[in-house]
Formats: sequence, structure tokens, C-alpha cells
Amino acid sequence: MKLTTEMMKSFIEKPFDFVERMGLRVIELEPRSVKLSVPLQGNENHIGTMYAGALFTIAEIPGGALFLTTFDVSRFYPVIKEMTLRFIKPAKTDVTIGMVMSVPEAERIVLEAEKNGKAEYVLEGEIKDKNGEVVAVSRGIYQVRIINPIAQ
Amino acid sequence: MKLTTEMMKSFIEKPFDFVERMGLRVIELEPRSVKLSVPLQGNENHIGTMYAGALFTIAEIPGGALFLTTFDVSRFYPVIKEMTLRFIKPAKTDVTIGMVMSVPEAERIVLEAEKNGKAEYVLEGEIKDKNGEVVAVSRGIYQVRIINPIAQ
Repeated sequence: MKLTTEMMKSFIEKPFDFVERMGLRVIELEPRSVKLSVPLQGNENHIGTMYAGALFTIAEIPGGALFLTTFDVSRFYPVIKEMTLRFIKPAKTDVTIGMVMSVPEAERIVLEAEKNGKAEYVLEGEIKDKNGEVVAVSRGIYQVRIINPIAQ
Repeated sequence: MKLTTEMMKSFIEKPFDFVERMGLRVIELEPRSVKLSVPLQGNENHIGTMYAGALFTIAEIPGGALFLTTFDVSRFYPVIKEMTLRFIKPAKTDVTIGMVMSVPEAERIVLEAEKNGKAEYVLEGEIKDKNGEVVAVSRGIYQVRIINPIAQ
């Protein structure tokens, strides 16, 4: 199955209500490379900076976005195992995150998932404000799993 | 300053839009002990289980809720430094989280914040589904900071 860029963009910006109501937007969407943004407006905490839960979400979604642009969605599906977010400074503007995956890493994941039915991978990201300052750093542990693996 | 239970309940359930639109609810609210719930409805991901960002939020809010019920909000304020969420199994129902802080731990935090202007504390929690099954575990690192500390 081949997804069009428009299909992937819609899956990432409006996958379900929780993300859609945050106003998350795709800025770049390429195989093994995505960049997303989230507006401050509507996602403020009680002191007017971006709420930690919105920062979590912009750090978590690239895992699924990279999966869509990089892997065959008719053969594999992604699972999130663990996410750590370290808060560096308050986010006082809209924020962005960019994440990339190398060709060898993508190849390793496919080979391992084909062999074992699943493959783990780690994605680390920096959430930046409009001035390019890092407001939070993330480390997500994901798995790609094969759909209907052949019985061993 | 003394907050009433109703004031605290409102601060926790409707601190700002992001949390209010999730439908988070206070179940128990005592000094050093809180229990919260989040409905599945409105917080589903693309496969109908609870989205990771909603699980993050129900794990993060108790830090602020325990702060409100335990510490003097006219003297101190809380900051979140880091949060790790480990996903155990899909959440297919509404979920709850309970968190407690011991008396000695609360006393340590106040004494340390009075002495150093700030004190770090760790909160660990289990997010459970309606059947009591643990769907995710959290570990948050927070700081209590003193408002207008006396110059050293």
C-alpha cells in the first residue's frame, strides 16, 4: 500500500480528536524525516507557557509520522513503549520538533522485524521555540511489529 | 493563604483548556493524597484505546494536585523537571491514578526549600484501567521553589 503525502499529512495532523484540538501541523514530511509544529494558543498552562502535555504530544507524534513516511504500513505497525521528556525552560512561543532516521537504522528495523516479528528503536528529539532555544528534550522507545507474522 | 477544597478541585480539573477538554476529574483530594480519573471518550487514539498524551497528562497533573493539597501556595510554587511514562498495555477503559506523599517527605521538602530556595522530589504512579490492570507507570521529577527567597 502506498500512502500519498496528503493522506499522511491528514493522519499526522488529525489522527484523532486529542491531537486535532491541539492544532498540531506538519511542516516537513519526507521518508525518514519529519518536522512538526504546535501553536502556543490553546495549549497554555496556568502561567501562559506551553503545557507539559502539549510538549509531550509534539514529541510523541513524530514516532508515528516517521513510521508512516519510512515503513510499509501494510506490513508493519508501530507501538510506543516508553517516553521521557526533560523540561529545559518554559515554552513562551509556538514550538517545533524535527526528527530524522538514518537509512541504515531504517534498514536494520525492517530486517529485525522481518526476522523476529518486532524491532525496537529509539528516537531522540529537541523541542524548540521560535528563537531556536531548546525548551524540552525527548527520548522515545518504540517498536515496529510485523502484521500477521509467519508462524515460527 | 488557605485554599478551599472546591478551589483546589477547580484548579485541578480546569486549570487551563488543555486539561479541561480531556475531562479530567478529581476522585479524592486530601493533604498528601490525590486520586484522579480521565475518561476514554474524547481521548482515544486511532485504534480506540487511550492516547499516550492523555496518559501522560493524568500522570503529570498529580504533581500539581499534591502540591496544592500539601504545601503553602503563598510561599512555594512547583516546577516539573522530567517525566517518564512506560506503557504497559493499551488502556481500553477510563483510567485512574492515585498518588501519595509521606509526612516525612513533605517535611523534608519544606525544610530543604526553606534552606536552599528549592527542593526536588520524585513522584511515581500507576495508571490503572477499570479492571485494576496497570496500563502505564510514571516517574516524575519535580521541584518546589520558594517564592521570593530571602537573599543569602
